[in-house]
Amino acid sequence: MSPRGPFVIGDLPGFTPEIARLVSMMRYVRETTEAAVAGLTVVQLDYLHDARSNSIGALLAHLAAVEAWYQANTFLGRDLDAEEMREWGAALDLGDDARTAIRGRPLDHYLERMRRVRERTLEELGRRDDGWLQETAPFWEGQPANNHFKWFHVFEDELNHRGQIRWLRARATAGV
Amino acid sequence: MSPRGPFVIGDLPGFTPEIARLVSMMRYVRETTEAAVAGLTVVQLDYLHDARSNSIGALLAHLAAVEAWYQANTFLGRDLDAEEMREWGAALDLGDDARTAIRGRPLDHYLERMRRVRERTLEELGRRDDGWLQETAPFWEGQPANNHFKWFHVFEDELNHRGQIRWLRARATAGV
Repeated sequence: MSPRGPFVIGDLPGFTPEIARLVSMMRYVRETTEAAVAGLTVVQLDYLHDARSNSIGALLAHLAAVEAWYQANTFLGRDLDAEEMREWGAALDLGDDARTAIRGRPLDHYLERMRRVRERTLEELGRRDDGWLQETAPFWEGQPANNHFKWFHVFEDELNHRGQIRWLRARATAGV
Repeated sequence: MSPRGPFVIGDLPGFTPEIARLVSMMRYVRETTEAAVAGLTVVQLDYLHDARSNSIGALLAHLAAVEAWYQANTFLGRDLDAEEMREWGAALDLGDDARTAIRGRPLDHYLERMRRVRERTLEELGRRDDGWLQETAPFWEGQPANNHFKWFHVFEDELNHRGQIRWLRARATAGV
């Protein structure tokens, strides 16, 4: 599970300084997520530890869905539309719908979606600057949130689920 | 489990700009960790889901231990000494020693240690500047890491375990 170095949060070509630091963190997080699922089979990706547990596959689908939601929110100033919700709804909400709908796919299916969404995030962030990162809008509980917080939250949610993925992987692959 | 707003990553009095953004993230993460364990009893904190699982109490102890390790590394340029390892070793390594040694304590015991360690972190970060955050030293696999990465890693490890804590809490409190 070891990611590659160097382990540096700092400037990156193509991004303003604050966005570069954010992207440095997002990239490191994604490397560790990909390392945490490397080599998993369809059966392991579909493994349900108990009746209320999410599969690793569903958690990976969730990561892409959350990022798509924050793209719409921060880049377009709107929620996901009906068509986007058909693509992302089950993964966004997890739970019973995800347990039924998100199954039987190989690892590359999930990774490819995560990469496609991320590619767009980086393109859009590359067009913005540190002033945009500080822009606020009403958010949870009607409290203001800035764009910096929202993109921090995308990777902080990923880390939360990476912790669960590592835990589930140890059980899904036990005896293999 | 909802933290308080406003949800802003940005300037904070007493810190240089980059350190303030880092501290903004650390604070939000800690609020969510504290929310994830609020009200847990000793029995719930000691709950072991299976033979290889860590208890929520041990994970909380781990958070403080990891932060103490990074204080020594980044503020003092050394490892934990023998006395510090007696205090933090089991929590740092988790596993069997932690399962045996870290038990029977109420929530406040863990929270108080986390807060004591954090207080020192904030004091020390308040004495440093953004240039210090960019200083690098050899780290994992002999690759360089900067102080910004190391303190990012402290909260990214916390988030990883917060994800596990939320998962374990749902099982430890089932039927309560």
